[in-house]
Amino acid sequence: MILDRERAMMARAIQLAWRGRYSTHPNPRVGCVIARGDRIVGEGWHERAGEAHAEVQALSQAGHDARGATVYVTLEPCSHYGRTPPCAKALIDAGVAQVFVGTLDPNPAVAGRGLEMLREVGIKVSEGLMADEAARLNPGFMKRMTRGRPWVRLKMAASLDGRTSMASGESQWITGAAARGDVQRLRAMSDAILTGVGTVLADDPSLTVRRDEMGDIGDATDPSRQPLRVIADRDARTPPTSRILQGGNVHIFCASSALSSGQAQDLAALGISLTGVAWRDNGVDVPELLDALGELGINELLVEAGPTLAGTFVRENLVDELWLYQAPVFLGSTGRPTAHLALETMADKIQWRVQDRRQVGDDQRLILVPR
Amino acid sequence: MILDRERAMMARAIQLAWRGRYSTHPNPRVGCVIARGDRIVGEGWHERAGEAHAEVQALSQAGHDARGATVYVTLEPCSHYGRTPPCAKALIDAGVAQVFVGTLDPNPAVAGRGLEMLREVGIKVSEGLMADEAARLNPGFMKRMTRGRPWVRLKMAASLDGRTSMASGESQWITGAAARGDVQRLRAMSDAILTGVGTVLADDPSLTVRRDEMGDIGDATDPSRQPLRVIADRDARTPPTSRILQGGNVHIFCASSALSSGQAQDLAALGISLTGVAWRDNGVDVPELLDALGELGINELLVEAGPTLAGTFVRENLVDELWLYQAPVFLGSTGRPTAHLALETMADKIQWRVQDRRQVGDDQRLILVPR
Repeated sequence: MILDRERAMMARAIQLAWRGRYSTHPNPRVGCVIARGDRIVGEGWHERAGEAHAEVQALSQAGHDARGATVYVTLEPCSHYGRTPPCAKALIDAGVAQVFVGTLDPNPAVAGRGLEMLREVGIKVSEGLMADEAARLNPGFMKRMTRGRPWVRLKMAASLDGRTSMASGESQWITGAAARGDVQRLRAMSDAILTGVGTVLADDPSLTVRRDEMGDIGDATDPSRQPLRVIADRDARTPPTSRILQGGNVHIFCASSALSSGQAQDLAALGISLTGVAWRDNGVDVPELLDALGELGINELLVEAGPTLAGTFVRENLVDELWLYQAPVFLGSTGRPTAHLALETMADKIQWRVQDRRQVGDDQRLILVPR
Repeated sequence: MILDRERAMMARAIQLAWRGRYSTHPNPRVGCVIARGDRIVGEGWHERAGEAHAEVQALSQAGHDARGATVYVTLEPCSHYGRTPPCAKALIDAGVAQVFVGTLDPNPAVAGRGLEMLREVGIKVSEGLMADEAARLNPGFMKRMTRGRPWVRLKMAASLDGRTSMASGESQWITGAAARGDVQRLRAMSDAILTGVGTVLADDPSLTVRRDEMGDIGDATDPSRQPLRVIADRDARTPPTSRILQGGNVHIFCASSALSSGQAQDLAALGISLTGVAWRDNGVDVPELLDALGELGINELLVEAGPTLAGTFVRENLVDELWLYQAPVFLGSTGRPTAHLALETMADKIQWRVQDRRQVGDDQRLILVPR
């Protein structure tokens, strides 16, 4: 039987884990609470890759009080020696009596091993406490570990009549400052941001996280790094002077045949990584691109692209979450569509489920998931 | 000083008035409360044109208790002999001591006369109590009396990508049953429904109010009649077999030159009213059409039209409220736009203020007003 106390403790651990929402990648967000009955004696969360894991932080705060205590941790404690010693071992050494876990480690090669280590020495172990909420901390980590691909968020900023810019391409600004600040926070949550070379050529965006535009991030840790900028660019046409290339940390996916071109060599000379992938008539082979990003360790991918690339993601059902910022304006029927999508009949319509709907300044933000 | 009691009484009168939302046209919605201190002794609301006015209903309920009582009425009592004797006279005859009024009669020819009649016999009179809320009962009556034109509500049912149908014209159903029921209630509130002949030819809609599809209307009185169906049809092409013509109560606005055509004569023979108005390159002269509808006594006009006519209303800033039903679907970039609107630059964008936003089944309903 799950007690209210146990839910409350795990909810606190989940809350702590969210503090790492902008900073733990490529590691998962993890929170941990150590309690004796109703009294919390230690709390911790993972802040940045290479720094202490949540359990170690909480144990350090608990000190001798950890002996005989109950541990609530959002993700199964690790069982292997990585950048830090295994957390399961640390819990054993501290003499805790019981461990509640939100979700198992999603990596099929190690799932359950941490709990096994604990059970072997007689620690009482329960898994699956608030499992859905705990899993929601790390949709990308979960998906990459199980399916080899990142969690895909497609971001659109559109008018009520479904346009993202005027026919001329002019689009600044459809949404207000509050929505743009929200997009900065969305970028900061992401491991990588994908765009197409068309957008680079037309808008010359930097696609960086600007901390001063993120607004109030509450108790979250500041972003620890810029997301990887990824460009789908068949012919390696990205101009070396593009804003997106400034500061490095860019990966260009082009056609394999373009890898040997002079342009590609110029880009490589600037320190830009280039990888050849398959291309089709209407653009990059997105499934292959997602596999490649999974191999690069990208957990959460944000797609900020023009209507062609956005259309491919939607058409091929490769969107996990559509973040649609809607401004209360009409841009007119001559404006550019949100996504190039040729659908014939009502039966072909793409259906979404509204997961979250909120006001952001004058605009509305919808988080939609495929139905 | 306005007391809480007075606000509460007027709020009740406004609530009563709303019961007539589907049934009073072409008369305004009016509610009345008669009280002695905190005790309500009579309540009334106008139900249907030709039946008792709100004040008379309330006086009849109050009986002898009306003597020396306070009256709260949402609209200035009438001062003229129409289908019923003037309500101001009825209040005087009943011996009430004080009258609170929400809004003055908007008709400039009679505004203030009812209050004057009351004042002349020594009744204490206050106007403007909850004036905004009281005026909102009758936006069309107010606008027609002051500006000679109906209040214009433009209804659209669109996808998140701003499409109202597939390229083929197929559009059934974008929104769900709950939203369609809401549209039935919106139609029932309207004096007239306007569409274009293109929609008649493409979809053959009936544009009637179907009571069984209105759903729960709470304490409202059932609709008393069908709204007038109005067709903008330059060449009087509406087929005599169209569903919209069944049951009569249709008014066609065509080019004056078309009035003498055989088609127009066939329609007239069916009992359809035809009026000639000016036409421009992109359709009917909407301001002239609105003037004509004002002369027909139309208070609240619902526009359910295709993208051309809808675009004219938006472009010429003739929309008082845009009712946008948004389904959580994409219909694709080949679908038809909500409104034909050729805008060049971001500076031309049409800006709306969100007055109301709510979930209706799986869909969202936005009520937008021009900013």
